[in-house]
Amino acid sequence: MRLLTKYGVTLLFLCGAVFAQKRPVDYVNPFIGTSNYGTTNPGAQVPQGLMNVSPFNVMGSTLNEFDKDARWWSTPYEFKNAYFTGFSHVNLSGVGCPDMGSLLLMATSGTLEVDYRKYGSTYSAEKATPGYYSNVLDKYKIKAEATATQRVGTTRFTFPKGTNHILLNLGEGLTNETGASVRQVSETEIEGSKLLGSFCYVNNQAVYPIYFVLRINKKPSKTGYWKFQRPGAAWENDWNKDAGKYKLFTDYKDILAGDDIGAFFSFETAEEETVEVQLAVSFVSIANARENLKTEQPKGDFDAIKTAAEAKWNDDLSKIEVEGGTADQKTVFYTALYHALIHPNIFQDVNGEYPAMETRETLKTTGNRYTVFSLWDTYRNVQPLMSLLFPDRQTAMIRSMIGMYKEHGWMPKWELYSRESYTMDGDPAIPVIVDAWMKGIRDYDIDAAYAAFYKSATVTDSSNRIRPDNADYVKYNYVPLRDSFDNSVSHAIEYYVADWNLAQLAKSLGKTDDAKMFAARANGYQHYYSKEYGTFRPILPNGDFLSPFDPLMGANFEPNHGFHEGNAWNYSFAIPYDIDGLVKLMGGKKNFVQRLQSTFDKGYFDVTNEPDMLYPHIFSEIAGEEWRTQKLVKTILQEHFTNSPGGIPGNDDTGTMSTWALMNMMGIYPLCPGRPDYTVVTPVFDKVTIHLNPDFYQGTSQIVIRKEGQGDYIKAIKVDGKKNSGYKLAHDKLVNAKEIVITTGNR
Amino acid sequence: MRLLTKYGVTLLFLCGAVFAQKRPVDYVNPFIGTSNYGTTNPGAQVPQGLMNVSPFNVMGSTLNEFDKDARWWSTPYEFKNAYFTGFSHVNLSGVGCPDMGSLLLMATSGTLEVDYRKYGSTYSAEKATPGYYSNVLDKYKIKAEATATQRVGTTRFTFPKGTNHILLNLGEGLTNETGASVRQVSETEIEGSKLLGSFCYVNNQAVYPIYFVLRINKKPSKTGYWKFQRPGAAWENDWNKDAGKYKLFTDYKDILAGDDIGAFFSFETAEEETVEVQLAVSFVSIANARENLKTEQPKGDFDAIKTAAEAKWNDDLSKIEVEGGTADQKTVFYTALYHALIHPNIFQDVNGEYPAMETRETLKTTGNRYTVFSLWDTYRNVQPLMSLLFPDRQTAMIRSMIGMYKEHGWMPKWELYSRESYTMDGDPAIPVIVDAWMKGIRDYDIDAAYAAFYKSATVTDSSNRIRPDNADYVKYNYVPLRDSFDNSVSHAIEYYVADWNLAQLAKSLGKTDDAKMFAARANGYQHYYSKEYGTFRPILPNGDFLSPFDPLMGANFEPNHGFHEGNAWNYSFAIPYDIDGLVKLMGGKKNFVQRLQSTFDKGYFDVTNEPDMLYPHIFSEIAGEEWRTQKLVKTILQEHFTNSPGGIPGNDDTGTMSTWALMNMMGIYPLCPGRPDYTVVTPVFDKVTIHLNPDFYQGTSQIVIRKEGQGDYIKAIKVDGKKNSGYKLAHDKLVNAKEIVITTGNR
Repeated sequence: MRLLTKYGVTLLFLCGAVFAQKRPVDYVNPFIGTSNYGTTNPGAQVPQGLMNVSPFNVMGSTLNEFDKDARWWSTPYEFKNAYFTGFSHVNLSGVGCPDMGSLLLMATSGTLEVDYRKYGSTYSAEKATPGYYSNVLDKYKIKAEATATQRVGTTRFTFPKGTNHILLNLGEGLTNETGASVRQVSETEIEGSKLLGSFCYVNNQAVYPIYFVLRINKKPSKTGYWKFQRPGAAWENDWNKDAGKYKLFTDYKDILAGDDIGAFFSFETAEEETVEVQLAVSFVSIANARENLKTEQPKGDFDAIKTAAEAKWNDDLSKIEVEGGTADQKTVFYTALYHALIHPNIFQDVNGEYPAMETRETLKTTGNRYTVFSLWDTYRNVQPLMSLLFPDRQTAMIRSMIGMYKEHGWMPKWELYSRESYTMDGDPAIPVIVDAWMKGIRDYDIDAAYAAFYKSATVTDSSNRIRPDNADYVKYNYVPLRDSFDNSVSHAIEYYVADWNLAQLAKSLGKTDDAKMFAARANGYQHYYSKEYGTFRPILPNGDFLSPFDPLMGANFEPNHGFHEGNAWNYSFAIPYDIDGLVKLMGGKKNFVQRLQSTFDKGYFDVTNEPDMLYPHIFSEIAGEEWRTQKLVKTILQEHFTNSPGGIPGNDDTGTMSTWALMNMMGIYPLCPGRPDYTVVTPVFDKVTIHLNPDFYQGTSQIVIRKEGQGDYIKAIKVDGKKNSGYKLAHDKLVNAKEIVITTGNR
Repeated sequence: MRLLTKYGVTLLFLCGAVFAQKRPVDYVNPFIGTSNYGTTNPGAQVPQGLMNVSPFNVMGSTLNEFDKDARWWSTPYEFKNAYFTGFSHVNLSGVGCPDMGSLLLMATSGTLEVDYRKYGSTYSAEKATPGYYSNVLDKYKIKAEATATQRVGTTRFTFPKGTNHILLNLGEGLTNETGASVRQVSETEIEGSKLLGSFCYVNNQAVYPIYFVLRINKKPSKTGYWKFQRPGAAWENDWNKDAGKYKLFTDYKDILAGDDIGAFFSFETAEEETVEVQLAVSFVSIANARENLKTEQPKGDFDAIKTAAEAKWNDDLSKIEVEGGTADQKTVFYTALYHALIHPNIFQDVNGEYPAMETRETLKTTGNRYTVFSLWDTYRNVQPLMSLLFPDRQTAMIRSMIGMYKEHGWMPKWELYSRESYTMDGDPAIPVIVDAWMKGIRDYDIDAAYAAFYKSATVTDSSNRIRPDNADYVKYNYVPLRDSFDNSVSHAIEYYVADWNLAQLAKSLGKTDDAKMFAARANGYQHYYSKEYGTFRPILPNGDFLSPFDPLMGANFEPNHGFHEGNAWNYSFAIPYDIDGLVKLMGGKKNFVQRLQSTFDKGYFDVTNEPDMLYPHIFSEIAGEEWRTQKLVKTILQEHFTNSPGGIPGNDDTGTMSTWALMNMMGIYPLCPGRPDYTVVTPVFDKVTIHLNPDFYQGTSQIVIRKEGQGDYIKAIKVDGKKNSGYKLAHDKLVNAKEIVITTGNR
């Protein structure tokens, strides 16, 4: 052991030289998805960490192409923008609505300026790797670097000689809410709170505070606050020179609260002197933020924190190793996995405390409590991926969901920091948990989960905000169109998916009657099928179809009748659990295939959103048509998932788009959540090695998926030497396989 | 003792019936000074209490004649106004600048409305007595009543049957600062903070937080907050329905911070149901506010608190008993004493803690720590009055002043809640303490006080913000006019007064050289005398007098050259300590008397402000001219001090105007602070009995001042039977006298 310690460094160096091979973490390009509305950010964070420190460049200057206040905007960073106004702490990745993105930390030089319209700067030498981001602020010649532990962001500024400043802007951010408070604890420490919430504007009551403690490692020469002062009447402005302006508070250290406030620290620095800033957060209290700081970063050692963050990422990313493929494909792949490991993220403080769902009572957990459940998105593939790669995290996430039910009485839908935003449709907690359950991940209170599911599936009064139209749904087995833009068909389709899943669970739990009831309900989708149009079509309260009807209405996220973020074409095949039934409904196999194919040929298929993301894989449910899946997946991957800032087609949706690419590149895609199998597609790589968690999967420690032969089309699938029948691979078979050989060729 | 308890009520009732005489407290009319810019308020408070609960009627409606945002405005209440928007907690009385006047508590009925422009109401049945205020809100038929202990306000609302609300508006107030925070502790308790300060706009860094805890005695059916939301761009307002409006937070209980926020409680009440609200404050912390609440009002018993407050007032007011005079004169008199006992007020919490001067470090005191020292005003008579009536309080006030020096390095000038506002002129702490010292009130650290005085008198660099032009003053013995409106002459005159006082103290302490130096400096006023105009006149940096010069420039508070809030006429006789010298300077007695008399005859005399408030008494310094004092004082009292809302001529100046009236009505007025004597004037009353504090004055327990004879002019003054030589009465003589007989007649 002593020898190892003594020569450790040398040995590692030698290893590095011998195996000069790139590690998974080295392939990640955090700029992928930072343009083209991908809404990811290149900020520093650890896997599933609460803290994300992102460059913030979406306000304050016409140098920016996109401004958060000039249009709907949901990300702290846009690759095409140019005007940096600081680092935002705690951000959302890949979402479509503005929230979070606050606690803006900036460094400047020269005369103190606290107006972000003036203190921002263009930047260059931008660099981002997992757990690290840096740039150089052109205006000030300051190098800015960020890294993070789970709940604490660390920023290092390298200053030129002279007077420099560190600013914490608490007035701005992506969130729709304003209002913050700050207090100086000592010359080198401030603490405070800021209001966040009203995500997507759906539930304007879903607001919550973030608490912070900020510490700097150099004694400032000057400290203070600023606050934008209410404009006064003309007479008053003669006396009150601060009215309608940013007022500097240079001689006040107690609590300052307001809409548009901030704190500053000024320094005299030597050339290339560095100052480190640690910003810790908590959603429980300032005291907990401080405890998080002390526990995670007892010393503020930027380089050590950066190294540890990178190591954590490499550990996680190494759960899958790939060989073959181009460097760009590896980058797309590992960046996709990186994006899949951002949300849900941990929520509890180091002492285990977190605010309970909706009640916000302080509770304590022993395991990880997760938050940011964008379930309408993630039930499709992110959560299934977690079951395969990180069943321990999946278990904790499911326990978190059940915890929310126990605290609040309802499962989450689009949960954000223990507030339910009621964004998007359906009852998506059901397929998440049922899918895991069917895959054997079962170490949680399934009775409570079932009670929660049964409740949201059956309660028909207005207390049921998960299924707001459940009275109609239960009565008619469909949701009639009661308001022009009520998304009724989309709601119902999600209820069918949830009910089909619930039927599987009921059956598994021996609740035969429930199973039958929910299975029957899941068939209700057939009500919506319009022979005339060959698509689903809204139904009016009187039972008639909506007329006139345009199945293409609603493309490009425009509102339409009955469908949410899509049109009839984007939803009409979205019944993954009953493709056979759908085929019959639509007039048989030939007609079905032709119509489904036409969604691609005619450009109806929307690659940017969830409802039809399963369409390519549906062909694999129809014997002889699987080649279409393989062809389409290849094309979509090539065209839409690239090693570039625009390399994700639209919002990443907390990793859902990335996971679509990721799993298809691996060669397996979960077409139907709740059905424990995968559609096999042509892998991008020659060899994919999946390392399994032995606590959950004892059949094998790693699965190798090997592609053999040339060509894009699958000719044969062998599992440990035995031919796999068809193009579906059961989960159980997968996780017990040592090697899966996919032989490919031309069509 | 048991008998007393048992029959106590009956006995008291009998006593009341037998001596059906009005008590001093019964004469007080808190509406005096609430119009005509008196800026007193009819709010409920105890003597020298921190808490004042005042009706707030200066915003939100065109029904008001005066609006705080439409003009310079410094009081929460104006008698002529009509639109009530709540009770403000902790107010300033008689000041000329806006500050404090926040924590606005309102009650409403029906639909919840949180915009003060809409929720306010006219009122009727208004009543105010010391420690109590009530009215009826016409719009809601709610009776609103307020009373207070030292640090806690109690409000009682009597509601009609139905849905009613209690609102705490934290967005508005008189103060120029905005920004507050609030948090719900339980259904019946909230806590928070609000920023105050920038008094008079002179020192915009002099801000400080007030902390509060509010408790209600009825469980509400609903609670929540409101906040004015930042207006969004047009596109955003489509989504964010709250943008640019007051948003209600009905489902959020954690910290809310912002510029324009509030909290509400809604109730269902029976007819005539009462709800009591206790609002406790602290300038140290929320925890201390809560401790103040628990200690002062363990039970919220409105009637008991009201009775106790009234009893406290009667105790204090009974220090002087008067007989004779009209009921209105008694009302003017006792209301004046009431106004003299509002500021300075106590500052420390029940546990003794207070924020140190400027550093705001939490310190602890055993005695009372006082705050709100408007010393440029109060050194003239309020503090001398305290020496006579409440030497214990005067001692504690002086100790507080010395404490400020020890904490901050400088004596207070216009101190407000441990911030120095640097408002008005001179070095007024010196005459306050020297006057008390010369009257034998000496139980404080005089060495520290002297060190402080010596410092502000001699330091000539920019650290000396008490005497900002001390370099000039020390060099030239006058302050040249360096800026058009720099008030240089007014500054210098105050320095002379302070230096004369300091000379007296130095002499008393055996510091002969210092005494000589400061006495010589006090003579510097002669530099300013212009023979040409017969007034003081600004001197230019080159030593010449300012030309052209208009000695009347600066009337009506208009800015002028060299004089502050007055003109050359209002300052030219303001050298109380050297009337003989002034007489010589101005060409002898005849000329002097003629010129001084002309200030009254020509209307130059400004009854609304401090600089020339001593003018009537100057005649009493000149043998044979004393009748002029007696005549002028009578006329001024009759014309300007009346039992009506406009019954104080201009700002009461934290009791200074009232004390002018009070002492003149008693028959003794302190012409020259630092010189322990009084000018005897014709008392308004036949008999004035002053009860002395035996801890300080052992010569007699009470002094009777008896007026004998008819007529307005003093013919003789006898002290305990012996003729008093002249019209001055030494303090020592006064406080050892049993009876002073003033014989009056015609001229």
